[in-house]
Amino acid sequence: MTESQVKKIGVLTSGGDSPGMNAAIRAVVRTANYYHLECFGIREGYSGLMEGNLTKMGARSVKNIINQGGTILKSARSLEFKTKEGRQRAFEQCQKAGIDGLVCIGGDGTFTGAKIFCEEFGIKVIGVPGTIDNDIFGTDNTIGYDTALNTAMEAIDKIRDTATSHNRVFFVEVMGRDAGFIALNSGIATGAIDILIPEREDKIEDLFENFRKAEGTGKSSSIVVVAEGEKLGNIYDLAQKTKDEFPEFDIRVSTLGHIQRGGSPSCADRVLASRLGYGAVVGLMQGHTNVMAGIRANELVYTPIEEAIRKHNEMNGDLMKIAEILAI
Amino acid sequence: MTESQVKKIGVLTSGGDSPGMNAAIRAVVRTANYYHLECFGIREGYSGLMEGNLTKMGARSVKNIINQGGTILKSARSLEFKTKEGRQRAFEQCQKAGIDGLVCIGGDGTFTGAKIFCEEFGIKVIGVPGTIDNDIFGTDNTIGYDTALNTAMEAIDKIRDTATSHNRVFFVEVMGRDAGFIALNSGIATGAIDILIPEREDKIEDLFENFRKAEGTGKSSSIVVVAEGEKLGNIYDLAQKTKDEFPEFDIRVSTLGHIQRGGSPSCADRVLASRLGYGAVVGLMQGHTNVMAGIRANELVYTPIEEAIRKHNEMNGDLMKIAEILAI
Amino acid sequence: MTESQVKKIGVLTSGGDSPGMNAAIRAVVRTANYYHLECFGIREGYSGLMEGNLTKMGARSVKNIINQGGTILKSARSLEFKTKEGRQRAFEQCQKAGIDGLVCIGGDGTFTGAKIFCEEFGIKVIGVPGTIDNDIFGTDNTIGYDTALNTAMEAIDKIRDTATSHNRVFFVEVMGRDAGFIALNSGIATGAIDILIPEREDKIEDLFENFRKAEGTGKSSSIVVVAEGEKLGNIYDLAQKTKDEFPEFDIRVSTLGHIQRGGSPSCADRVLASRLGYGAVVGLMQGHTNVMAGIRANELVYTPIEEAIRKHNEMNGDLMKIAEILAI
Amino acid sequence: MTESQVKKIGVLTSGGDSPGMNAAIRAVVRTANYYHLECFGIREGYSGLMEGNLTKMGARSVKNIINQGGTILKSARSLEFKTKEGRQRAFEQCQKAGIDGLVCIGGDGTFTGAKIFCEEFGIKVIGVPGTIDNDIFGTDNTIGYDTALNTAMEAIDKIRDTATSHNRVFFVEVMGRDAGFIALNSGIATGAIDILIPEREDKIEDLFENFRKAEGTGKSSSIVVVAEGEKLGNIYDLAQKTKDEFPEFDIRVSTLGHIQRGGSPSCADRVLASRLGYGAVVGLMQGHTNVMAGIRANELVYTPIEEAIRKHNEMNGDLMKIAEILAI
Repeated sequence: MTESQVKKIGVLTSGGDSPGMNAAIRAVVRTANYYHLECFGIREGYSGLMEGNLTKMGARSVKNIINQGGTILKSARSLEFKTKEGRQRAFEQCQKAGIDGLVCIGGDGTFTGAKIFCEEFGIKVIGVPGTIDNDIFGTDNTIGYDTALNTAMEAIDKIRDTATSHNRVFFVEVMGRDAGFIALNSGIATGAIDILIPEREDKIEDLFENFRKAEGTGKSSSIVVVAEGEKLGNIYDLAQKTKDEFPEFDIRVSTLGHIQRGGSPSCADRVLASRLGYGAVVGLMQGHTNVMAGIRANELVYTPIEEAIRKHNEMNGDLMKIAEILAI
Repeated sequence: MTESQVKKIGVLTSGGDSPGMNAAIRAVVRTANYYHLECFGIREGYSGLMEGNLTKMGARSVKNIINQGGTILKSARSLEFKTKEGRQRAFEQCQKAGIDGLVCIGGDGTFTGAKIFCEEFGIKVIGVPGTIDNDIFGTDNTIGYDTALNTAMEAIDKIRDTATSHNRVFFVEVMGRDAGFIALNSGIATGAIDILIPEREDKIEDLFENFRKAEGTGKSSSIVVVAEGEKLGNIYDLAQKTKDEFPEFDIRVSTLGHIQRGGSPSCADRVLASRLGYGAVVGLMQGHTNVMAGIRANELVYTPIEEAIRKHNEMNGDLMKIAEILAI
Repeated sequence: MTESQVKKIGVLTSGGDSPGMNAAIRAVVRTANYYHLECFGIREGYSGLMEGNLTKMGARSVKNIINQGGTILKSARSLEFKTKEGRQRAFEQCQKAGIDGLVCIGGDGTFTGAKIFCEEFGIKVIGVPGTIDNDIFGTDNTIGYDTALNTAMEAIDKIRDTATSHNRVFFVEVMGRDAGFIALNSGIATGAIDILIPEREDKIEDLFENFRKAEGTGKSSSIVVVAEGEKLGNIYDLAQKTKDEFPEFDIRVSTLGHIQRGGSPSCADRVLASRLGYGAVVGLMQGHTNVMAGIRANELVYTPIEEAIRKHNEMNGDLMKIAEILAI
Repeated sequence: MTESQVKKIGVLTSGGDSPGMNAAIRAVVRTANYYHLECFGIREGYSGLMEGNLTKMGARSVKNIINQGGTILKSARSLEFKTKEGRQRAFEQCQKAGIDGLVCIGGDGTFTGAKIFCEEFGIKVIGVPGTIDNDIFGTDNTIGYDTALNTAMEAIDKIRDTATSHNRVFFVEVMGRDAGFIALNSGIATGAIDILIPEREDKIEDLFENFRKAEGTGKSSSIVVVAEGEKLGNIYDLAQKTKDEFPEFDIRVSTLGHIQRGGSPSCADRVLASRLGYGAVVGLMQGHTNVMAGIRANELVYTPIEEAIRKHNEMNGDLMKIAEILAI
């Protein structure tokens, strides 16, 4: 490898945490270590960067974390970093520590900050997509998404046990304010009778129609998976409207909530995080900046951060169709 | 064994389902089979009994169910069985099928029905305690309780990942309308800073005091586990009051909900269910009736149903103390 | 959709079972049902086909199986189907039942049989890749591979607990006679100090060198993940040679074995199986034959069976490098 | 509480590790802390004690370990501590640090050392039973046993998926050199056709008889659970003898191995460990010595170490009978 374009790198996690962030931190630290770069862990995201909350990290400082949920560097949301003054302070801390390359692990919000910071002060920055929502362009999967899918699925499997035993209808809310990836995939995986997601114009009549079809076939219990950001209404409204239409139904609601953000990462997430952490450091060394590291079709690729934020992964059309066909 | 006091037995599950009910059904069917008794599975609890919704079950009809949550016989709540007429119908169905012994798997409500039915019509009845709440006297553990504890604990472990990453306070509601067993044990197992249960007069000031102590020791995130039936208020109220007192806290709430009723039963629950299902059949054969089969201090015991309903397992005092000591 | 090229389809599983096969069967049956094709389940693979061991399957006959490991149709290896006479019998059974399209779920061996049968008798055949080994060309992942990765990883995580507590070195054998995918990915995910796979010329000296480097950095326990088909020797030989070189090491070996074939499928496997089962039926309807349905870069594609068998997925070169960098 | 009989306590883990040891360490440290005793963590068991490998531990030094398998204090076997000179050195280290009370977490071997040390030098010692084997008298369950049961059961559940799919017979070896608790309970929980344990004179003919009975009832696949210490032979011998008797059987063997020692502890184990760690410290304060803390019939009890080692928990006779009845 030719001479590295960076000498000292910093790594931070920001925004909502996701399983696999620790595996990404580990990969950044060990790859830097391997290539004889100094590496600083920045605690509590951009807040910590502004306050110079840094620690030098060696290979042993990331031992036994690859299997742990959350982030050992902690995460925080920072209003101050949205101001020019805040970013100026952050830049001064970088100068003081000699940091000339930054790896920012997080989602949309994290990347927006990274992009501005990079453009204003010329610090080299690479983003690593860590969010359970999978709503980042430039990578097939984001870190934490696969684990969240399994967590949601296992929870719904448990709910199905009790739904089946009592011939009940359950409305289950999964995470996803703007994206229905978790809902669609966990819904297919658990045989949901219907899946309601923000990307689509759902009609309550279609849901009712599915219930009627199901009754015709002898299906005695049902689960409807609803993404948080669904526009038809929240699960309580939906349950009430369904009860009005089918008074004989025994209906329950369940919100899976924050369990979806935690847990030991899946194998796919640990490997993805390892590849992206490695890719971020190697990218910085090669001079890449203002880009996000991602894996597409099993290859490491760098996408301009601007594009990663602006564009969106398309929901696969086949999956919608498959969900409908397999439900009953 | 001397001659059996029953010839044909029926088995049903009633009330809220719990993991391990299938293992109990399997044990009833196979034990009956082993001792050459006929065995009928009654679907949908007392409703099914009144309607004669019965199927004869052999050893192979319960294969591959020991590891499954829920109940293959399904469960239902029945208002009609609370009337004399309803029970009369049920009795006629028993006579028609020749059933002279009944195994009723469920909780308080199930046992109340079983007791009246037994006393009115002389059908031999043995109860098997199947409920996640562990609120039945006459057995150290009820079927499903251990699994529910593990489910709650694993969910809270996941929540702790995200709580720690963000320095947050979480209020987590677990099941238990009248009993704090799940809250107390899952709270100890997850290092909760406080545990609020219906059996105790909790004061909000004590909770606040715990938060203050924790801040003093450098603890940066906390989980409060709250039983459903807690009298201080629901988790939303508690969160709001805490926010009023500690405006700097980043507080979240999470209700674990119905996931606690489902899932593949733990080893302890499968073994317990196997022992109690066996114990119920053997008990009927020996002439026991109007009793519940339980395991106390590792021995099979029969407790009058009346006593099982009226008395309550005491919350272990040590556990309360331990919860307090270990929290910080 | 234009008129279907098939009217009655059969579905079978053959070869080693893998988690998600049931989800694929469910998808085949329900897609056929949706498009008004008759669908027959063939039990015990090609043996069952030769013996006419068929059952007509409707939408409800595949309920509650999406979450179950194994295959409800059972699997078997058949020597007779390797003979012309055997395949002739199978063809006669197809004619008798009116089956004009066949979905064969399995791996290399299954596809070899499918290809010959299709070419000899003109029955339309589509293969669906179901094997934990991921050694089939034409799909990014095979059904069951993701679940097996998680199973192997979780087992190794447990072993690491005890390795760390005792400062031990563990050699862990995972499945993979000809392919190192499981070893490489589960090894990266568990921070293995070395990963030995059949695709690479491993040298024992390199392993020893890794141990020496690790000692230098203060690493006190290590795990070596070894694929079944590793050519350097089995784990017992490797452990002995290592003991000879490092007499002070406390070394243990563990073979994960058949647990890797079972278990409830992961979300990714259930969704993959659902897509491929759907894709197989739709492919038959459109006239595809002698091909395998796969997902590449998130798109449904059909690859000639001949190519799927002959070619191999390349081990990603980056991953090897990453494994080395992150190990210490 | 009256004045404490000890001022400074040490805690160590020794022998084979078991899940929940960390929860016990945490309870010891925090209870000591709560009662204003100094507490030292001793690394690597008795070796560390002899070498003065001690660290003072405060409440925060045991944070986030309650859910982790293994032991943060590490464990080791020490030959030197079996000599008078070794123990003399250990005593001098205690004197130097001012340690007057010792909590020893482990099994038989750990307790034997603790007893001699206590009797020779007058240091107050309380044992805490931490072993997956459950072979310690004076407590209903040992720490780690419940977790090991669930680990074994979940592994066998996975094996059953593939056994069922292929109509196979599996011999599965679980841990237990001298005790069959894991085998008996995991065998009942997974519906094993037979369970072979060291406590019983098993005959191969009885196993064959069970196979014959099973064939008669249409059971098509079977699992035999065998404890490590079974005297009839190891699983390879048993498999071979079975193959000789039933040449038509498709037989496989699987050794679960070290996965049974690791993993995040179950709720029951975390609560048990918390109670026993608390009980050990409180016991020392009250002047108890040369005893083991245990929980029997849900009460904290102290049993002389001599008795804990000499006596054995009886295998429950009912369980043997139940295993037989429910198998087929």
